[in-house]
Amino acid sequence: MTDPLPTGATIGILGGGQLGRMLSVAAARLGFRTHIFEPDANPPAADVAHAVTTAGYDDVAALTAFAKAVDVVTFEFENIPTEALDVIESITPIHPNREALRTSQDRLTEKTFLEGLGLRVAPFADIANAADLEAALRTIGAPAILKTRRFGYDGKGQSRLRSVDDAATAWADMADSPSVLEGFVDFSIEVSVIAARSASGDVACFDPGENVHRDGILHTTTVPARLSGAQRMDAVLLAAKILNALDYVGVLGVELFVTPQGFIVNEIAPRVHNSGHWTQNGCTVDQFEQHIRAVTGWPLGDGSRHADVVMENLIGDDMDRVPELAKQRDTALHLYGKADVKAARKMGHVNVIKR
Amino acid sequence: MTDPLPTGATIGILGGGQLGRMLSVAAARLGFRTHIFEPDANPPAADVAHAVTTAGYDDVAALTAFAKAVDVVTFEFENIPTEALDVIESITPIHPNREALRTSQDRLTEKTFLEGLGLRVAPFADIANAADLEAALRTIGAPAILKTRRFGYDGKGQSRLRSVDDAATAWADMADSPSVLEGFVDFSIEVSVIAARSASGDVACFDPGENVHRDGILHTTTVPARLSGAQRMDAVLLAAKILNALDYVGVLGVELFVTPQGFIVNEIAPRVHNSGHWTQNGCTVDQFEQHIRAVTGWPLGDGSRHADVVMENLIGDDMDRVPELAKQRDTALHLYGKADVKAARKMGHVNVIKR
Repeated sequence: MTDPLPTGATIGILGGGQLGRMLSVAAARLGFRTHIFEPDANPPAADVAHAVTTAGYDDVAALTAFAKAVDVVTFEFENIPTEALDVIESITPIHPNREALRTSQDRLTEKTFLEGLGLRVAPFADIANAADLEAALRTIGAPAILKTRRFGYDGKGQSRLRSVDDAATAWADMADSPSVLEGFVDFSIEVSVIAARSASGDVACFDPGENVHRDGILHTTTVPARLSGAQRMDAVLLAAKILNALDYVGVLGVELFVTPQGFIVNEIAPRVHNSGHWTQNGCTVDQFEQHIRAVTGWPLGDGSRHADVVMENLIGDDMDRVPELAKQRDTALHLYGKADVKAARKMGHVNVIKR
Repeated sequence: MTDPLPTGATIGILGGGQLGRMLSVAAARLGFRTHIFEPDANPPAADVAHAVTTAGYDDVAALTAFAKAVDVVTFEFENIPTEALDVIESITPIHPNREALRTSQDRLTEKTFLEGLGLRVAPFADIANAADLEAALRTIGAPAILKTRRFGYDGKGQSRLRSVDDAATAWADMADSPSVLEGFVDFSIEVSVIAARSASGDVACFDPGENVHRDGILHTTTVPARLSGAQRMDAVLLAAKILNALDYVGVLGVELFVTPQGFIVNEIAPRVHNSGHWTQNGCTVDQFEQHIRAVTGWPLGDGSRHADVVMENLIGDDMDRVPELAKQRDTALHLYGKADVKAARKMGHVNVIKR
């Protein structure tokens, strides 16, 4: 491994949304500067960054200048075009690595990788056309869920099938995108493990959080999750296995379904994760700083949990509740400074602490 | 009082050092943007600000443009030229108010104000020339300490007198600056109260911290301070009295000497204060966010203490300890991203938490 970056070095971040914003603040806490690369003007992260490049991922000149201006590159989202990564990587190291990105960018690759590690995933099938879908529905059974292999998030690019009768409509909705069909899993709760691996191979996991979704978007994460000590240990070992297999450097989010037969991996995200926002008020070192420490070659920090926390996302009109939340005891507000309130748009979150 | 500023509004901050930097991060957490005004290029706060103006405090055009670009103005240090404040205040509100600044900019005015409130201060005398100094030394006695009335910080602009024999040299060192002579106070410990007052007049104080100085610079602040319950109550009431008398909006630091006869006020600072840095890891809402809430007309947040903390400043070569500190349990690093390590320069701080 290389030497840790000195304080004062510049971290390039692909993506300027709220995750980039909170990564930027964590970087500043350790004396690093950040440089945001983002196609949209005035992204949330720009308010707390040393420099911002506003350019598309197909702008080779802008990507080249960006890569030359920074000491390491990381990202807040996984759907970065391969060509952009090629340009950057020829100049500057990228963490987490390309293999981790490639694996998690495609649901089929990801599920195959996880199965290869001996981990359980929901029954799935590769769907390239309507005939594949009908055949898969017969094997996997209904209800099931059809998801695009790439570029899905927050419930987008998904459709539920209650029976074989829904197949034609569902496939038409996908507009020929390569997809996977996933069987439904009968789970009691969903938890996620936010796991970090340093450049020297040390692994540290935050305490698993229990997730509740609404309309396909994360609504709350609660720590501690309702897990036994043995389950907690299993979750951490499972996350470590994934990190080590990918030779991963940075923070990874792992979503797990809890079933009577054990954990089923729902999906992995090669970045800081919404279900890890509770760490900002529940740990000495949060997921954002842990990620920055990892990608700069620093040792991981103390991520042990010191409080019970309920993280709730503030979505769209939830912003109307801010004046009340601001007065509430044991309540930490985190707002993203987004100009327009839109339905289903993540505007901020609140961590309510119980000690 | 006026309406609270909406998230997305811009806060102008005079001064771009580490206090401006941490204020800027706290502002971002509530969705506000910041605009830094600072004469020096590349100040620490610029790395986490939406906009930066690099100009002197005598640049009327720059001050005017700055004041027009922001919704409210605050500051990280008290020694701002009156003329600059006049320009800004004709355009945009300043919090804390001018009276608070005027009072704390001049040690003589400050001590007279505090005495007027019925609070105790060290014996002092106004010194305009060598004869004043000799006369005052006879009344107050030696040892004593001569301080410039204005522009002193971190032990600068001060000299100690062991006897009347030191008077001529000490006065020569002051280069004719209007000064005050302060008698020595026989105190057991120094504590500080970080107090906040909102636009609607609510007051909230953080738990008092116990300060240790080295070479005239704050070395550590420890919470809880060694105070009785009655002393804690007295300290808070005293701080509230100062805030209310000044019709203050924002965070104020109050340094107190603990003596057998009660508290003696050492000095007040109309801003966030180094001895309040422990709040970043000991409270749900820290001093920086509390200040931002106050100056934007928001309600104060929950500043109750949930952990014991020792804050230690990292000064000059203390930066060599960062690699070790980064690995330590229960330890939160806060580095300011200053390019050059200099002796006696505050480079960062570390909060060590005990739960």
